Amino acid sequence: MHYSTKANSNPTILQIVEQSGLSADAMSPVELLLDGDAGFSSDRILYVCNNISAEEMKFVHDKGVLVCLDSISQVDTWGKNLPNTDIMVRINPGTAGVGHSKKVETSGKDTKFGISEANLPELIETANKYHLRIVGTHQHLGSLFLNDKIDDYIEGVKTGLDIVKNNFKDIKIVDLGGGFGVPYNPNTEKPLDLFALSNKLIPILKDFIKSYPSVDEFKFEPGRYIPCESGIVIGTVTAVKQEYGTYYIGTDIGMNAMARVVLHKKPKKTTSRIYANICGNVCESGDVLGKKRIVELPEVGDIVVVYNCGAYGYSMSSNYTGRPRPAEVMVDGSSNITLIRKKEEISDLII
Amino acid sequence: MHYSTKANSNPTILQIVEQSGLSADAMSPVELLLDGDAGFSSDRILYVCNNISAEEMKFVHDKGVLVCLDSISQVDTWGKNLPNTDIMVRINPGTAGVGHSKKVETSGKDTKFGISEANLPELIETANKYHLRIVGTHQHLGSLFLNDKIDDYIEGVKTGLDIVKNNFKDIKIVDLGGGFGVPYNPNTEKPLDLFALSNKLIPILKDFIKSYPSVDEFKFEPGRYIPCESGIVIGTVTAVKQEYGTYYIGTDIGMNAMARVVLHKKPKKTTSRIYANICGNVCESGDVLGKKRIVELPEVGDIVVVYNCGAYGYSMSSNYTGRPRPAEVMVDGSSNITLIRKKEEISDLII
Repeated sequence: MHYSTKANSNPTILQIVEQSGLSADAMSPVELLLDGDAGFSSDRILYVCNNISAEEMKFVHDKGVLVCLDSISQVDTWGKNLPNTDIMVRINPGTAGVGHSKKVETSGKDTKFGISEANLPELIETANKYHLRIVGTHQHLGSLFLNDKIDDYIEGVKTGLDIVKNNFKDIKIVDLGGGFGVPYNPNTEKPLDLFALSNKLIPILKDFIKSYPSVDEFKFEPGRYIPCESGIVIGTVTAVKQEYGTYYIGTDIGMNAMARVVLHKKPKKTTSRIYANICGNVCESGDVLGKKRIVELPEVGDIVVVYNCGAYGYSMSSNYTGRPRPAEVMVDGSSNITLIRKKEEISDLII
Repeated sequence: MHYSTKANSNPTILQIVEQSGLSADAMSPVELLLDGDAGFSSDRILYVCNNISAEEMKFVHDKGVLVCLDSISQVDTWGKNLPNTDIMVRINPGTAGVGHSKKVETSGKDTKFGISEANLPELIETANKYHLRIVGTHQHLGSLFLNDKIDDYIEGVKTGLDIVKNNFKDIKIVDLGGGFGVPYNPNTEKPLDLFALSNKLIPILKDFIKSYPSVDEFKFEPGRYIPCESGIVIGTVTAVKQEYGTYYIGTDIGMNAMARVVLHKKPKKTTSRIYANICGNVCESGDVLGKKRIVELPEVGDIVVVYNCGAYGYSMSSNYTGRPRPAEVMVDGSSNITLIRKKEEISDLII
């Protein structure tokens, strides 16, 4: 299990993940260094990258970290600079992605990621030219899939394993990526049933090893799934209004602090007539935390809590419109409260 | 003319805007302080905000800056804390927005912004309760409109002016917002014809003043229009590949550095068969700078330039996936080159 550092790279959280025995995915030199500082040894880090420079490739190799490259072009650049080394490659099985929307599809015929089966002969030729050893393959079908997409995920896994079998010799690692979703709207979404998923997945993996015994490791990359539900953002209601029949609840949680909510918003179904759009304090029409959410009508000054913000929360935040970012505070089961990132001050933003 | 600080808040750019005689819009304490540092006096700053706290209201008032409030709820909070003061209010004329997509609509019946005409009696009652003087109105119809939306913009202005006439007495300022677009795709979009716009707009404004003589100032809020076309982002091609018939040109310009391109991407029409998706280096399927853009096939190491990045470029950037942000360099007409923001280093991101 490789934790995706980009989901939440708070140093204290990374330490907890390291101590729990997981490995880590990094995708930039900074993430690689943060993982190292948290205690991950090089052999527990995989560098899953996209369109990186030759200098960055050398940095990764110098750190003793295995790389996963996602185009023949990147394999060519790697080979020129670092011949006779081990690499993994990212394939695009070409099946429909399993993401909850087009924006997070990472497989299929319209994505920047991976290498299609048709191009694998050229890939292998390129690797051979530089005496690169392809020790593993990687695929990732899309982000945030829930129960309705389990069968699509399984189909994508089957297709990917067939591609491995038909094109690569003596692969040791098959990385099946991540994408395990969490419900962002409790009214319409149910938690992913991991048992249902594993009941379908494990027989397929067992069968695969029988006919392809060199594989001794399957990797998975849960990013969102691990920290998401343990993080909340707390804000304050700053305005309540009703316009054209819709309630708008204004808060001080802007899209600078919680970007992902905005990127992933989608229409919600509701059976109640008491619903509201929950908004931030940034002058952007996209600055909406949730649309048509069922709530009790709040008052100015009330506390508002956004759940499931532990993943892609702080890591995607910015200072857009000059808004300092909030502190991060960790609370454990025995009510120990620890400040794990300081609140930004206005003075931090005036350079 | 009020320059929207959020479009580009580089201190050197703000100084140039100040010296050119424009006023400024701020929407956070940081932006207000940056504007002040750049030389804008308080009477040349308008605080156009959304869902702010009572503390922030006091901060703005203490700085002697006029505020524009966008809900009865915010007017109530302002009045409780700062009775007997001047305010502006943001109205929502209810007409269709003029934004180039739903995401940037800021008028109509589905936006968090403004106060509808039906709610204006309650607004005025609330203002009167606290002896607040409504000295101006504000409206903003949407962002990034081009020639095809000029008539919609004019209709929105007419409706807004009628609302002012029918509901407010002795208003001095009518702020008609911004939204003046720039073409992001030279293949499909033409520059906004400002003369065509002003030829339609000016007679309407002249007529309005005849029947409503207390207005002595119309404000406009060009944010994007001023710095956008003078800014470019320069990167390097890191990978070139073709998968399922589509070229992908990988670059080191990720969505952390240029967020807005991603937020605003849209399908492009092309008549040529030589097209490519230009991508960044972040592992997100949305990390695409341009889709189906007509280009000459580049090689790894080639320089890639993204035009029209002067607005909503650095101001929306982040360190997502641990990517340091690039330097900002100013080049004037006589080829003077000035570093106006230092490049971030990896060490800046390891805390």
